[in-house]
Amino acid sequence: MHTPWDHRFAQRTKRMGSSAIRELLKLTEQKDIISFAGGLPAPEVFPVEAFSVACERVLREVGAQALQYGTTEGYQPLKEMIARHTSRFGVEITPDNILITTGSQQALDLLGKIFINPGDKILVEAPTYLGALQAWSAYGAEYITVQVDEHGMDTDALEDALRSGPKFIYVLPNFQNPSGATMTLERRTRLIELADRYGVPIVEDDPYGQLRYEGKHLPAVMVLDSQYQENCEVGYLGNVIYTSTFSKILAPGIRLAWVIAPPEVISKMVQAKQGADLHTSTFNQIVAYEVSKGGFLYKHIELIKSVYGERRDLIMAAMDGYFPPGMEWTHPEGGLFTWITLPENLHASDILKTAIEKKVAFVPGSPFYPDGGGHNKFRLNFSNANPERIREGISRLGKVLNDAVG
Amino acid sequence: MHTPWDHRFAQRTKRMGSSAIRELLKLTEQKDIISFAGGLPAPEVFPVEAFSVACERVLREVGAQALQYGTTEGYQPLKEMIARHTSRFGVEITPDNILITTGSQQALDLLGKIFINPGDKILVEAPTYLGALQAWSAYGAEYITVQVDEHGMDTDALEDALRSGPKFIYVLPNFQNPSGATMTLERRTRLIELADRYGVPIVEDDPYGQLRYEGKHLPAVMVLDSQYQENCEVGYLGNVIYTSTFSKILAPGIRLAWVIAPPEVISKMVQAKQGADLHTSTFNQIVAYEVSKGGFLYKHIELIKSVYGERRDLIMAAMDGYFPPGMEWTHPEGGLFTWITLPENLHASDILKTAIEKKVAFVPGSPFYPDGGGHNKFRLNFSNANPERIREGISRLGKVLNDAVG
Repeated sequence: MHTPWDHRFAQRTKRMGSSAIRELLKLTEQKDIISFAGGLPAPEVFPVEAFSVACERVLREVGAQALQYGTTEGYQPLKEMIARHTSRFGVEITPDNILITTGSQQALDLLGKIFINPGDKILVEAPTYLGALQAWSAYGAEYITVQVDEHGMDTDALEDALRSGPKFIYVLPNFQNPSGATMTLERRTRLIELADRYGVPIVEDDPYGQLRYEGKHLPAVMVLDSQYQENCEVGYLGNVIYTSTFSKILAPGIRLAWVIAPPEVISKMVQAKQGADLHTSTFNQIVAYEVSKGGFLYKHIELIKSVYGERRDLIMAAMDGYFPPGMEWTHPEGGLFTWITLPENLHASDILKTAIEKKVAFVPGSPFYPDGGGHNKFRLNFSNANPERIREGISRLGKVLNDAVG
Repeated sequence: MHTPWDHRFAQRTKRMGSSAIRELLKLTEQKDIISFAGGLPAPEVFPVEAFSVACERVLREVGAQALQYGTTEGYQPLKEMIARHTSRFGVEITPDNILITTGSQQALDLLGKIFINPGDKILVEAPTYLGALQAWSAYGAEYITVQVDEHGMDTDALEDALRSGPKFIYVLPNFQNPSGATMTLERRTRLIELADRYGVPIVEDDPYGQLRYEGKHLPAVMVLDSQYQENCEVGYLGNVIYTSTFSKILAPGIRLAWVIAPPEVISKMVQAKQGADLHTSTFNQIVAYEVSKGGFLYKHIELIKSVYGERRDLIMAAMDGYFPPGMEWTHPEGGLFTWITLPENLHASDILKTAIEKKVAFVPGSPFYPDGGGHNKFRLNFSNANPERIREGISRLGKVLNDAVG
């Protein structure tokens, strides 16, 4: 049907393109498909009972406040809790450094809105998080890429990339989406030194940082940067904007995340958020605060880690058992994803077609590379399917891969 | 403090400016101020108990689904309910015409994102809703204005404005924010004829349409437009994009609204929403559906109407009693606002300073006029304050105004 809107779409819509992942997720919603495609948490670990208790209490005690409009900045006790939590890692954060967002996707969108002019170059990892590319391409971003290997962003290649004059560096240092790689302490330090030398600030995206199943916690780039200058009296220098989310440690269905940034950036983001959705759900913010407070969240994270850690071990073992020789995959120390490399002559998108016929799904690698590449890579999620389905799904995928390798 | 972000803000941030209303709201948050400034619903009418029952039930029966990621388009039963509701007004809407948004502010933002190129002209009413200006200015919108009088947009002035080639017309036909004016049936028809003749589509913003306290319901512009063509087989032509919200009929704290548009527009909005916040809170959508279904919402709207209708009568009577001669105000047939005109020589922003000293607040008119004007106008909200505070607040304001008139 033709409507008068057809020829009125803005130029930027040509750069928007639907997310390959989300379109694929629709295809894989059929019940009989075992999907390793999404980045979904395990529904079994949602703290449903704690939510139920919190909802009842919030509505009984502060119902009128919870259902009313709130401030754009976010619910103050929630911001205070996040500030206290973050300060435990050795960087002094105040509630004025924090903006509550409607999922960290909104944090990325608002950052794009306040920083990106059409044609601006953003330095990203290759591969990188698809949602960031989707958010920023709408504002006309172009990309400079630095390859990721098993130790995260290859900082040896960073200096060349920095010479192209990026507006900022975007990095996911912990259990990266999609590669599962974690940036070593040495590379984090090198990143900070080079960013400082070239005067390029950093956006650090850390949705999974608290979900580590082995090895030692590594300091956030934000923390390291603030320690980098010897006399950092303020505790937080503001060179690094940090974002994290309740989606992976509580529940994604409440759309709740946060950004840590210097006050002048928070102030601009607040202006942008006023125009974008006024504020994040007051009800969800107060309920999430009620659920999280008093140490519940830390205990709950331990539960999530035990469940996901087991699933990671299981998918590793299953791939060892079922996948043909000639394939490689990352051994993530945390997070939700492992990243598979096929022999060069195979295309993950071809494999996917057969896989879906055999009722198993994943995300092919190409969309994660803004510059091209990744044709023989794909991403597997191990948090969502239960152990039985992981085993069965990897067995199915193993058959598809064995046939393809021939 | 200087950070490397300071000089990196995008050009568009210069056009963003913080909302005068929201900055003012902060000032008026002091407990002793009686504020007629915000557009807040009465907390007394929030269906707290119904929310509590719904939350308990949703978490018990579909907790894992409610806390999980959802589709960008929105929760299907909620979309079906909205489609059924809308179809009662004589226009056939399917769930594919609907996108659930994070408040109708997000609907406005997404429309800006998919339609507005920098420099595009948008035809708006003067005065018009501030949030639309805020959302669209970030995308570089410019404005053509048509004056609003007591019968809504002055359609006699519309043709000239249409000759300037606006991308679309933005109209709030019912109990307009800020003026409280309702567009007559004749003017709605004239608007549709002229829009059709000039090939300019319409965005209809209808947050208060169901909150009418007197007079007969008037068909939405969307409905009239679809009836305008004699052989409209589809029932919905798609020339008018319509948006409404649960904020005023249920609760704003859940950030839940919807857009009705032709499928190709919905599809582009879905792409934009993927990048903006992935999807609106699954939990809030399912809870709102549970609260609303089975006719509860219609009964609840009757309650809201009786409370707000009484408050409207009360504020009208109080203004009659306390305001000095030489002032005029609109008599809104519904909605949340009345619009005051001071004598020409007075400035509402001056009056506001004195008013705040006397512990009463409102919103001055100028920000609602993108082209300038409105210096002697201001907006009063009558939904939020209870009867006692309305009387006391208008009495205080009356003293300020009497002093000013001298």
